[in-house]
Amino acid sequence: MKWLQKLFSTASDSLTTDLIPILGFTPKNIALYHQAFCHRSVDFSKYGDNERLEFLGDSILSTVITEYLYHNLPEKDEGVLTDIRSKIVRRKTLNDLAKKLGIDVFVKTNLGIKTPPSIYGNAFEALIAAIYLDKGAAICKAFIIDKMIKPHFTLNDLENEISSYKKHFLHWAQKNNRNHLFKVVDETGASHKKNFEIALFLDGENIATGTGTSKKKAEEAAAKFACESLDL
Amino acid sequence: MKWLQKLFSTASDSLTTDLIPILGFTPKNIALYHQAFCHRSVDFSKYGDNERLEFLGDSILSTVITEYLYHNLPEKDEGVLTDIRSKIVRRKTLNDLAKKLGIDVFVKTNLGIKTPPSIYGNAFEALIAAIYLDKGAAICKAFIIDKMIKPHFTLNDLENEISSYKKHFLHWAQKNNRNHLFKVVDETGASHKKNFEIALFLDGENIATGTGTSKKKAEEAAAKFACESLDL
Repeated sequence: MKWLQKLFSTASDSLTTDLIPILGFTPKNIALYHQAFCHRSVDFSKYGDNERLEFLGDSILSTVITEYLYHNLPEKDEGVLTDIRSKIVRRKTLNDLAKKLGIDVFVKTNLGIKTPPSIYGNAFEALIAAIYLDKGAAICKAFIIDKMIKPHFTLNDLENEISSYKKHFLHWAQKNNRNHLFKVVDETGASHKKNFEIALFLDGENIATGTGTSKKKAEEAAAKFACESLDL
Repeated sequence: MKWLQKLFSTASDSLTTDLIPILGFTPKNIALYHQAFCHRSVDFSKYGDNERLEFLGDSILSTVITEYLYHNLPEKDEGVLTDIRSKIVRRKTLNDLAKKLGIDVFVKTNLGIKTPPSIYGNAFEALIAAIYLDKGAAICKAFIIDKMIKPHFTLNDLENEISSYKKHFLHWAQKNNRNHLFKVVDETGASHKKNFEIALFLDGENIATGTGTSKKKAEEAAAKFACESLDL
């Protein structure tokens, strides 16, 4: 197989030309990119399907984002970082990104109009692996940060969007003139490993309860349940 | 904070000496390793706790293993690779590894005899991040492969252990003189995207059903359910 891939990689190929403006560099082993865009529904693809590349790319993408968040949000705890990361790598975001980056047009399937959007997100992950294997870790990391994260995400927005359920709830309660109260209903554990349970009352009624290792975390958890149940 | 970490990193430190035989190299910024071993139950740690490092290390570990499996099992599909990876990175394996590598003795908690084993696995993940930040990606990768994977795991064993439920079931059925039958009960989808449903009968009774994109995968899924329900 390897000599076959090599052969294709040196042959002139329109995919190479098409990819340069998207990637910002010239692909070397173009067979890897063909494979990245090939869904398993395509029979007898000479490049093979993209499932193993997707497995690798998914993990690389997650780690590059993890490291990026670790360095760029030095004051945030791992809970916030986990939330933000899952927002970036969730299926819908990746499907949309594949389209925004314009790689959806390269994806080959045999599913016709039944092609689900997840196929584009999966191909995007496979593309990450193709870049990694073709050009190395540094170029792959630069691609993810410069072409994906920086142009399409604002860490501040992501963080606010996710970690301010309490703020969101308070804003709503104030605007709608509703009484609310966060109340510690239980406190367990020794001083170095506390656990708090906080109930949120709205106009005197207990509408949600949250737990956490700090009062702040328990309040946030309670506010999150409240926002969800009130559909805020 | 950074100048403080630098200061500690240059000071002589017994942890440096203790870690050299385990890591196979000399740590540079020893403050990172102190932090990696410090559970959040320790109050006023000058190094900070290890939760953010654990968040980073967990991801790095997973990606290094993913890449290792991708290259070393070129004929295996992503389902098998996913199974093997989850077996390596599961909590219990990491907890045991921390003890085998002898890093459990460095872990600082304030929980006394109530310290759960997961704290050692978490510290191991945090250590991975400390190595990555201190010595770079190449040395971190080499540590994971040479000190963790190669001495403690055999890919063949992992693969057999996980992906041979059918074999395991057949062995048991033969040994116990039980009749069995795998039977395709449903087949859907166009030729390029088949889905099979296979029922497993034991002495004429349907004891499990599995689905998959090939007969082999559906049989494996059915055998897995059967092994689980029969506690084989």
